[in-house]
Amino acid sequence: MRLQVYVDRMSQPSRAILIFCKVNGIDFEEIKVDLSKRQHRNPEFEEINPMRQVPAIVDGRFKLFESHAILRYLACAFPGIADHWYPSDLFKRAKIESVLDWHHSNLRRGAVAFVLNTTLGPALGLKLNPQAAVEGEKLLSASLEKIESIWLKGNGRFLLGSSQPSIADLSLVCELMQLEVVDEKNRNQILGPHKKVQRWIEDTKRATQPHFEEVHGILFKVKAKLQNQVLLGANTVTGSSTKTALHSKM
Amino acid sequence: MRLQVYVDRMSQPSRAILIFCKVNGIDFEEIKVDLSKRQHRNPEFEEINPMRQVPAIVDGRFKLFESHAILRYLACAFPGIADHWYPSDLFKRAKIESVLDWHHSNLRRGAVAFVLNTTLGPALGLKLNPQAAVEGEKLLSASLEKIESIWLKGNGRFLLGSSQPSIADLSLVCELMQLEVVDEKNRNQILGPHKKVQRWIEDTKRATQPHFEEVHGILFKVKAKLQNQVLLGANTVTGSSTKTALHSKM
Repeated sequence: MRLQVYVDRMSQPSRAILIFCKVNGIDFEEIKVDLSKRQHRNPEFEEINPMRQVPAIVDGRFKLFESHAILRYLACAFPGIADHWYPSDLFKRAKIESVLDWHHSNLRRGAVAFVLNTTLGPALGLKLNPQAAVEGEKLLSASLEKIESIWLKGNGRFLLGSSQPSIADLSLVCELMQLEVVDEKNRNQILGPHKKVQRWIEDTKRATQPHFEEVHGILFKVKAKLQNQVLLGANTVTGSSTKTALHSKM
Repeated sequence: MRLQVYVDRMSQPSRAILIFCKVNGIDFEEIKVDLSKRQHRNPEFEEINPMRQVPAIVDGRFKLFESHAILRYLACAFPGIADHWYPSDLFKRAKIESVLDWHHSNLRRGAVAFVLNTTLGPALGLKLNPQAAVEGEKLLSASLEKIESIWLKGNGRFLLGSSQPSIADLSLVCELMQLEVVDEKNRNQILGPHKKVQRWIEDTKRATQPHFEEVHGILFKVKAKLQNQVLLGANTVTGSSTKTALHSKM
């Protein structure tokens, strides 16, 4: 039986899993769990992931959730995955673990809070919370500063001075891609000071094309919709079609 | 050169690392980074961990931070560590990774917010934030419910139905030990409904004694101080000695 990958492409960790599978030629079936239709709360999906979140996988009799755990598992369970994704070397692997663990409480937490409270909130039926947006931006900017000064400080194109991407590059860059939907001025203000981060995003894209672009297609569509709404003079996103499209776990 | 472990015993991830080393007979040197004296911001410590957080380790030429990454590394790098801590079996290990990843954004986030905003805040020079306390408690209680119904649902004494503890048991139980300093009524209200969680905490303590008790000694001292202050009629913790003792990264 093929690997089954349960995802909604509106979720950034879902996108990271899909790109990893595609880049590495893993034979898998993509099964959409439509968050806007609350399919993640269906009893059938709860059998797959009792936490009721995407992504999740089923590999034969084995079920797994949490995107970093899935990435590690896929890198080890499938033959022929290049070592740079999740190195077998103890020291290199430990450093990648350090980045992955750090991600949860820093970059991810900051980015989600910022995007939700500046842009996607109203489309999700939530009020924008300016205080939470400020705190999210602060954590996001501090996280970008750390990435740039600590993990991108060498001459390597990827995190930890590597010349090829790891699962940490993929996970963190997919997280940052959320910023695509934010107002351009805000996005430039946040990413502008971090030239190395910008280059790293582009390098990670390039290393995983054409899959990176294809899997992110949904995000670019949402971005275009939001821009059109701004051009039409709407201050908040209230259109029902966008609301449905964006009702996702962020 | 012996493994160097940089910690402050007031930090729960620091305690998890210390207990792991002691239980497994790892030869190490404990180096205190006194958070109340802001030693984690000293340039010398920044050389060890540019994120300026404890715990961190130095093993020969190798430096590492983030407690879960450290636990994984120690379990692999030192000979004779029993397999149950971090199983070599791909499927068992993946499940433990799933718990560890989940921890960051759920149990840990909820517990820290709750303890800080009900109890330790004033001692850290922070105002209690009742709204943040309510949100923290909600996330903490939901996390305990998930632990009980998903990972402790079998007959095993530890997470994932295991008969022996893993690094996930150690990390999560050390997180919950923070609740020792919370007002007894509040603590009982949170832990009371979760009998399996209570038994699991006791089982993890027993499996790691006498080290568990010894490493948590500082927490019990702080608890006694806080209780004395309550008995003396103080509503908030403002004594300078306690303030110093508690000024820690939570």
